[in-house]
Amino acid sequence: MAKERITVIGLGVIGASYASALRKAGYTVFGVDCDEDTVRKAAARGITDAASTSEKDFVPTSDIVVIALYPKQVEGELKKIKGLLKDGVIITDVAGIKSHFTTRIESLLPEDADFVFAHPMAGREKKGIDYADENVFKGANFIITPSKRNKKESIETIERLAREMGFRNIMRLTPEEHDKIISFVSQLPHAIAVALVNSDDRKFDTPRFVGDSYRDLTRIANINEKLWSELFLGNRENLLNSIKEFEKCLDIIKKALEDEDKDVLEEQFVRATKRRTEFNKEL
Amino acid sequence: MAKERITVIGLGVIGASYASALRKAGYTVFGVDCDEDTVRKAAARGITDAASTSEKDFVPTSDIVVIALYPKQVEGELKKIKGLLKDGVIITDVAGIKSHFTTRIESLLPEDADFVFAHPMAGREKKGIDYADENVFKGANFIITPSKRNKKESIETIERLAREMGFRNIMRLTPEEHDKIISFVSQLPHAIAVALVNSDDRKFDTPRFVGDSYRDLTRIANINEKLWSELFLGNRENLLNSIKEFEKCLDIIKKALEDEDKDVLEEQFVRATKRRTEFNKEL
Repeated sequence: MAKERITVIGLGVIGASYASALRKAGYTVFGVDCDEDTVRKAAARGITDAASTSEKDFVPTSDIVVIALYPKQVEGELKKIKGLLKDGVIITDVAGIKSHFTTRIESLLPEDADFVFAHPMAGREKKGIDYADENVFKGANFIITPSKRNKKESIETIERLAREMGFRNIMRLTPEEHDKIISFVSQLPHAIAVALVNSDDRKFDTPRFVGDSYRDLTRIANINEKLWSELFLGNRENLLNSIKEFEKCLDIIKKALEDEDKDVLEEQFVRATKRRTEFNKEL
Repeated sequence: MAKERITVIGLGVIGASYASALRKAGYTVFGVDCDEDTVRKAAARGITDAASTSEKDFVPTSDIVVIALYPKQVEGELKKIKGLLKDGVIITDVAGIKSHFTTRIESLLPEDADFVFAHPMAGREKKGIDYADENVFKGANFIITPSKRNKKESIETIERLAREMGFRNIMRLTPEEHDKIISFVSQLPHAIAVALVNSDDRKFDTPRFVGDSYRDLTRIANINEKLWSELFLGNRENLLNSIKEFEKCLDIIKKALEDEDKDVLEEQFVRATKRRTEFNKEL
């Protein structure tokens, strides 16, 4: 069977990294972006086989379409390409939220198109094609949230693409499970990092005093504000719940400090160490 | 001038790394530890020139004594070696808290001994001589909290040692300044990491889903519970204050989620990104 022709819509850091990884895996990859400079770079740097600002140039002949836009843009993009899609096309996305999002998108699909919702759990602090790097996918996690509409073969196709791009753990979850776990492992850490950096009273010249711990905990405070405010608000109930559970645990430490209770502190530290060590074994 | 003879008391991960770094810098370094196995390893691996379980073997002929014990053990150790110290000896420590600690220690000093309080801002998650590695000091910060009693030359001697061990930023602060900044850049991140790991409801198999962000934020949740409960309780007012300031900033994010206020979220993210980026430039 000939390898599928793929169009990636949106050549930001994730879309361009997808294009680059898929092209290296032997696929013919086309790129679409609204920014002319990005389109020029994609073609000139060999990130895509060809690139354009118009979906019409590639979508009609593509077997797979990757929509690598911000979650809120996916709906509009789908309406735009609806009339261009090839029969039997597989569409996929890269959005970091799924529950509400997937239901709305599915209602818009032509009968002949299959949308496999996916979340590549990798990224960079910087945005744009200049920071594209297919190596960020190496060993990373990839979550698919299958829907009742999905054909078995379509899901398997996207899983194969993920494997070929270098992802290691390729998993299937319901959209609800996805959003719950993501609120804890991804969004909560970002909320914490932002709050930590912003809580600096800056009475001292902080950068002169930091060690690895502060550096590690704040790296992701360098954050794309447009994307992450969408992700936070698109998953607000779960994220609020994760923040509250975190605060409960921080309160235990706070109370132990107020009570000068060494035993409780040690118990909390032992529990954390045990969990974090189990965790190292698995990874 | 001949290089000083140095005794390091306590060959845990920091003490043994000091010994190793100082020996490589050309000093004659002796090691003392209460654990016989540790003493054997120190000598056999060339971490020290010689090692013993008894202070009497080396302290009387040493120009510099490094007490690399937990903060609470320093007072007892000082009482133990008080009668053994060479005239004009310089003593130094590695404790991560200073304010209350230094006042108590100074009241115990013989007139002829000068104690230069120091905090090497480096370490490892693991404890014990097996994890000693002088490379952890490379490029790290080193804080000295001079006291009125200190001779200028003694401070300069410890600064020279720090430089020779590979520390980059060697700074002087008051004990009060030290404890304030440390509560923010070091203790608060540890409290957060512990609370984050402990707040996992474990409904999912978390390790399968984590990305770099969760991994970075929880690395230091693998924590020595005896040492860190001492450090937390020895600096509780400052740490409580740092936790409260952090919680205020997390509350801003929480409220923005409750109110679905995208503008406030974006504003918080932009502020954090700006600060974290400035920070990258300096480091």
